[in-house]
Amino acid sequence: MSKQVFVPGGAEARLNGLGIVLPEGPTPLGTYVEAVQTGNLLFLSGTLPVVDRKPKYVGRLGKELNSEAGQDAARVAALTALAAAKQHLGSLDRVGRLVRLSVFVAVHGDFFDLPKVADGASNLFQEIFGADKLAVRSVVGVASLPLNAPVMVEVTLEIID
Amino acid sequence: MSKQVFVPGGAEARLNGLGIVLPEGPTPLGTYVEAVQTGNLLFLSGTLPVVDRKPKYVGRLGKELNSEAGQDAARVAALTALAAAKQHLGSLDRVGRLVRLSVFVAVHGDFFDLPKVADGASNLFQEIFGADKLAVRSVVGVASLPLNAPVMVEVTLEIID
Amino acid sequence: MSKQVFVPGGAEARLNGLGIVLPEGPTPLGTYVEAVQTGNLLFLSGTLPVVDRKPKYVGRLGKELNSEAGQDAARVAALTALAAAKQHLGSLDRVGRLVRLSVFVAVHGDFFDLPKVADGASNLFQEIFGADKLAVRSVVGVASLPLNAPVMVEVTLEIID
Repeated sequence: MSKQVFVPGGAEARLNGLGIVLPEGPTPLGTYVEAVQTGNLLFLSGTLPVVDRKPKYVGRLGKELNSEAGQDAARVAALTALAAAKQHLGSLDRVGRLVRLSVFVAVHGDFFDLPKVADGASNLFQEIFGADKLAVRSVVGVASLPLNAPVMVEVTLEIID
Repeated sequence: MSKQVFVPGGAEARLNGLGIVLPEGPTPLGTYVEAVQTGNLLFLSGTLPVVDRKPKYVGRLGKELNSEAGQDAARVAALTALAAAKQHLGSLDRVGRLVRLSVFVAVHGDFFDLPKVADGASNLFQEIFGADKLAVRSVVGVASLPLNAPVMVEVTLEIID
Repeated sequence: MSKQVFVPGGAEARLNGLGIVLPEGPTPLGTYVEAVQTGNLLFLSGTLPVVDRKPKYVGRLGKELNSEAGQDAARVAALTALAAAKQHLGSLDRVGRLVRLSVFVAVHGDFFDLPKVADGASNLFQEIFGADKLAVRSVVGVASLPLNAPVMVEVTLEIID
């Protein structure tokens, strides 16, 4: 919440100001695409904490990973989602606002600190797009994710015409 | 299904006729908002069975809670979703129809009675909006939910201009 | 990817050319409907591998079922989703494109081969609608599904006016 006041302007200017370099866009793990636009909505596929096609984190929250690692994993997955959006849109300045964010967290046993993990994605979005563009959110603990990833992030955006 | 024939009129009149008082709107557990409207669609964040900022139910179906408790938990979570919608819209009479309902149920072991639990939310919506305004629905059993809640309800609505 | 080049034309012609007969449309397991259209979007309820109102598969991946069975279960669930869409639209030729596909896979233990299971649905959609109409996708491993089904498929479609 603090950083964005020092970096006015659109999402691309903020990315630059924050020194964030988006990773390579994600590669589908099967028969699907990473982005579909219909009307003013851009739907993205669920993204994982993968950098350069390699998982940056594996394992479950409550077992191999703690909340801090989970939060960073969510941030990395969110960066990958933004890379997918940019690949489709050309520029993140075309994002009118975030609409919906679903965060799936692979958990083991009694792990309930899910909002903290999800904030890894949400805080990143706030830094880049601002608090007035935040999405609604659901976060749930699931049994497993592809690649044994700890977090999947699924984003829907509104696009400016 | 039976009550609404005695309470004609819009959603607000039905709420009154049924003697339902909506709880306080939900408070975000992290960096997100409770409602986002884009075009004619109103997306709501996942809501939990929380009343006056305290969880009314905790635990898992198939362990601490049975189907009846789970069904009531889903009803309470759905009331909280309606409170969020009303906070955004001013009046539930602006709801054209329900579009989509996702119900996440925290389960332990072999618990499959998920549709019964989800009907706690769906039946409430039918009482208030009528059978012709019902949503599509998905219900899944998950490993954990924020606050150790047994149910999360995620709703998308269509808004009348 | 190979079959569709031999079957030009719209989705209905492809269905015929591939010899695929859609099953009976799904029956709600509670208080909801199978399809809701809002604007150009058609939302479908989550569908299970049910044929003639009987589950074709039960059990979890990583326990009672292997990846191949799971993939077929996803295909059967996807056929049921198409039956729901056809029931609503009259003809699948009114489908402009697939938008979003969520696949929920009931898993036991360390089962991560989720993309393979989900491809049972995605490959079917590609055969019928073509690669340029593919959806975004999320697939997660969950703890349980209604009817002890191994897979649930949730689809959103774009409709041609």
